Amino acid sequence: MGAYAGMGYKHLIDLNDFTMEEWKAIIDLALQMHQKPKDFLGLMHGKILGTLFYEPSTRTQMSFQTAMLRLGGQVIGFDNPQNSSVAKGENLKDTITIISNYADIIAIRHPVEGSAKAAAMHANCPIINAGDGGHLHPTQTLTDLVTLSIEKGRTDHLTIGLCGDLKYGRTVHSLISAMRRFPGNRFVLISTPELTVPQFVKDLIQESECTYTEISSLAEAIPHLDVLYMTRVQRERFASLKEYERLKSVYILDEAKMRLARPDLCVLHPLPRVDEIEIAVDNDPRALYFKQASYGVYARMALILKILTEGGETPLLSGCALDVPCSNSNCITRREPYIRPYYRENGNILTCEFCEHQQKRS
Amino acid sequence: MGAYAGMGYKHLIDLNDFTMEEWKAIIDLALQMHQKPKDFLGLMHGKILGTLFYEPSTRTQMSFQTAMLRLGGQVIGFDNPQNSSVAKGENLKDTITIISNYADIIAIRHPVEGSAKAAAMHANCPIINAGDGGHLHPTQTLTDLVTLSIEKGRTDHLTIGLCGDLKYGRTVHSLISAMRRFPGNRFVLISTPELTVPQFVKDLIQESECTYTEISSLAEAIPHLDVLYMTRVQRERFASLKEYERLKSVYILDEAKMRLARPDLCVLHPLPRVDEIEIAVDNDPRALYFKQASYGVYARMALILKILTEGGETPLLSGCALDVPCSNSNCITRREPYIRPYYRENGNILTCEFCEHQQKRS
Amino acid sequence: MGAYAGMGYKHLIDLNDFTMEEWKAIIDLALQMHQKPKDFLGLMHGKILGTLFYEPSTRTQMSFQTAMLRLGGQVIGFDNPQNSSVAKGENLKDTITIISNYADIIAIRHPVEGSAKAAAMHANCPIINAGDGGHLHPTQTLTDLVTLSIEKGRTDHLTIGLCGDLKYGRTVHSLISAMRRFPGNRFVLISTPELTVPQFVKDLIQESECTYTEISSLAEAIPHLDVLYMTRVQRERFASLKEYERLKSVYILDEAKMRLARPDLCVLHPLPRVDEIEIAVDNDPRALYFKQASYGVYARMALILKILTEGGETPLLSGCALDVPCSNSNCITRREPYIRPYYRENGNILTCEFCEHQQKRS
Repeated sequence: MGAYAGMGYKHLIDLNDFTMEEWKAIIDLALQMHQKPKDFLGLMHGKILGTLFYEPSTRTQMSFQTAMLRLGGQVIGFDNPQNSSVAKGENLKDTITIISNYADIIAIRHPVEGSAKAAAMHANCPIINAGDGGHLHPTQTLTDLVTLSIEKGRTDHLTIGLCGDLKYGRTVHSLISAMRRFPGNRFVLISTPELTVPQFVKDLIQESECTYTEISSLAEAIPHLDVLYMTRVQRERFASLKEYERLKSVYILDEAKMRLARPDLCVLHPLPRVDEIEIAVDNDPRALYFKQASYGVYARMALILKILTEGGETPLLSGCALDVPCSNSNCITRREPYIRPYYRENGNILTCEFCEHQQKRS
Repeated sequence: MGAYAGMGYKHLIDLNDFTMEEWKAIIDLALQMHQKPKDFLGLMHGKILGTLFYEPSTRTQMSFQTAMLRLGGQVIGFDNPQNSSVAKGENLKDTITIISNYADIIAIRHPVEGSAKAAAMHANCPIINAGDGGHLHPTQTLTDLVTLSIEKGRTDHLTIGLCGDLKYGRTVHSLISAMRRFPGNRFVLISTPELTVPQFVKDLIQESECTYTEISSLAEAIPHLDVLYMTRVQRERFASLKEYERLKSVYILDEAKMRLARPDLCVLHPLPRVDEIEIAVDNDPRALYFKQASYGVYARMALILKILTEGGETPLLSGCALDVPCSNSNCITRREPYIRPYYRENGNILTCEFCEHQQKRS
Repeated sequence: MGAYAGMGYKHLIDLNDFTMEEWKAIIDLALQMHQKPKDFLGLMHGKILGTLFYEPSTRTQMSFQTAMLRLGGQVIGFDNPQNSSVAKGENLKDTITIISNYADIIAIRHPVEGSAKAAAMHANCPIINAGDGGHLHPTQTLTDLVTLSIEKGRTDHLTIGLCGDLKYGRTVHSLISAMRRFPGNRFVLISTPELTVPQFVKDLIQESECTYTEISSLAEAIPHLDVLYMTRVQRERFASLKEYERLKSVYILDEAKMRLARPDLCVLHPLPRVDEIEIAVDNDPRALYFKQASYGVYARMALILKILTEGGETPLLSGCALDVPCSNSNCITRREPYIRPYYRENGNILTCEFCEHQQKRS
């Protein structure tokens, strides 16, 4: 494809766009910020972060805002698209073009998959993906990596239980995809058979040096874990209400299950939690999900500082444009008609470069 | 009760948690800020105020924001709970735990009584109560004290008329509770018999060195006043619409009544006003309610600066946990089931430590 | 009329309140800021801008916010009047009186005509009109002047095409009113006969040293233009749906029409655009509407800096108060009854000093 505005900037659309060296540099920087936050106050003086939240996610937005303010920068943005002229009849390209002339860096959250990449293509500044529909949420995974680095001292050779909705859980897929790149990690997938991870995630593990096992009981799994990553299971995801009533307590972390766990277990959760972790567990020193949220500020500080001081360039499209509509109706190429769909081709399988849905070439 | 996160911080939940010396120190600091605001710019550099407004109160929120910005600090927060993921299915404890790791100090406004104290119990930073339902609004009272200190030069030996809805008016109860602690104050309670102050407020005055009289006519009362504190009377609070029509003008401050008043009368109002003060009165130099609003910024600046520079600790619970639900259905202990109700016991009377409602032990 | 609070401040209600020398000084300052933005960072340190947006206009609000932050100042405000206590039962006077004690300068957007002038009358700080209903939007016009100064090097002796809805387009009227004050400008009014500029705008041109022609074809007009100012035509503005279908493509700027234009044509648009400029045109170097949006930040920076450093005074009312209601039902004098209508009298024609609607004296 030809030139586009977003060329020449470093974006974070997908954590896999960054090299392992870049991940490590960001994690190291986050650790330094955690140690001595005051050393970094003022480094972003005169810089502006735009937080464009097309769907509300107050916590993530406040984490980004805090990160920029703690670096001495400033913040503009919106969190209220229904009430915003930006969302009324203006396409994503125009909004991004304009706001990227106001701000030095943008964090975008959008309900449509692939929208962060589409935004990056038209931006005059770096774009950070703060969640694009059910697709990616790389700063959550970066937060998880920073948390493990601080709390376990490493991101390799860990036995990591993932519990709950492993089928639809975006953060679970993203965490596995990241952790399999470090040697010696073992994944314990704890869910009902209906809610286990999709095949493409299992394939990712098998391509790596890591391994996985599947198990349906949290109580059976927990004694063997270094890390337990809890996620919420929505009632609608069970086969029936009867099934839900029968199974829900199996996937609730309570004090009894905590008694079965190692003394150095690290319990994480992307939050918000509903009832999948009992409140009584919060007092357990192994319950680290609130610390994890606070480490997210350091992860975002490090990311913003790296991107704005070191620059670089993120290639956005590597495949070719085809006159084939993406099969994912929630893909940004289906919502904004001026965006041409691009695909990576592998035999007769086309993978959309925006939302990563796959279809057979017809 | 056992340890809780909010131990070890100085909070402002109820103005009575502060000693008279602390009040005076804050008022003195506010007076200095009013004199030389530029001396204080920059003292909160690098600090972040979180404004968590679970119900909209734009003016109070902007007053807090202005206070923090004028001290050189920064602000994060939300004002739009319906549109906020924070309010969707996340309990107060989790939100406060997380945001108190982002911010250095939090101002919380919440429609449920006792919520500020509940927030303080789970916070990793100081909490300021910016209004918890019909219960407390201590920074309004602090604003009133600062206003009298600036405009009258003192907070004692004043004849203070309070006019309007004295039964349900939170700011009225709080102001009386504060002013009775200074010697020589006389309260003139101006209302219909149905809307006079509750007995517990009269008891507070009688326990003090101050006195009160009750009167139903503003015109008769006004010539004797140093201070007139106006509040709104909602139509629904009158016995009937007929009664409202007959009485409403009695409690409206107009130019005619102002002509009966002393030349140094000080007219205050917590704002917003509806029609209980005629607009023509605004031009009278004795109408100080807009100045009062601007002094609120100095009161909040002084409060934030004191708490963040001097620290200290506010004890939150002094009674004991009982398996008795609070009789107030709008108490935070009734809304968030993980909060155990605590009571102070006096004979067979239980006073809830969150919302201060009283009930007989059954 | 007697004294009012807003006396003694420099406001921007209508661009015509400023002298040509003041315009030029602001434009020159904006050009310097465009050249060396870092020279201006910090000049507004310690100052606060209040952005009071009674109707959402996210882009304009973010432009103002960016301008103030890039000068080192801070921002408070609201954008969400439905959710705001400010908008509930509080009159404009009270809100402005209070917020103007918090902020050093206020930008107000309001759906009611004349509201910016009414706000200025009660403000204890300078007021900038960020749009008052269909009436004025002077910072858009200032943005247009800055854009022409940067991109064409001048604001005089230009042939300026204005295309689209010239009848109701506020920015079109305001731009003509400004550009006619520079010598040698020629206006080419491109629209259907039903949507051409109102007679009062033609009169403004004829009173000046400038000229205009009217034409119904964009393709015929475009070869002769130095500047093309595109605006949106709403479907409802056409005589019929049939007429709309027949004519809409005539007023859409596409690549074919761009091929007819001069190599140094400057295409502007106040944005947001809907479909009146095809997206393919965005890649043409003559498409300057996104740059124009970014120049708006410099225009607003220059305006804020001038007003807050040089002061001055804007006279608000020059006519006399009459007990005649304004004939415009969307005039602020009809919405807020404490505001007396003021009129300039010319024979038996009364011109409202708030909304500028004219009526015959009866």
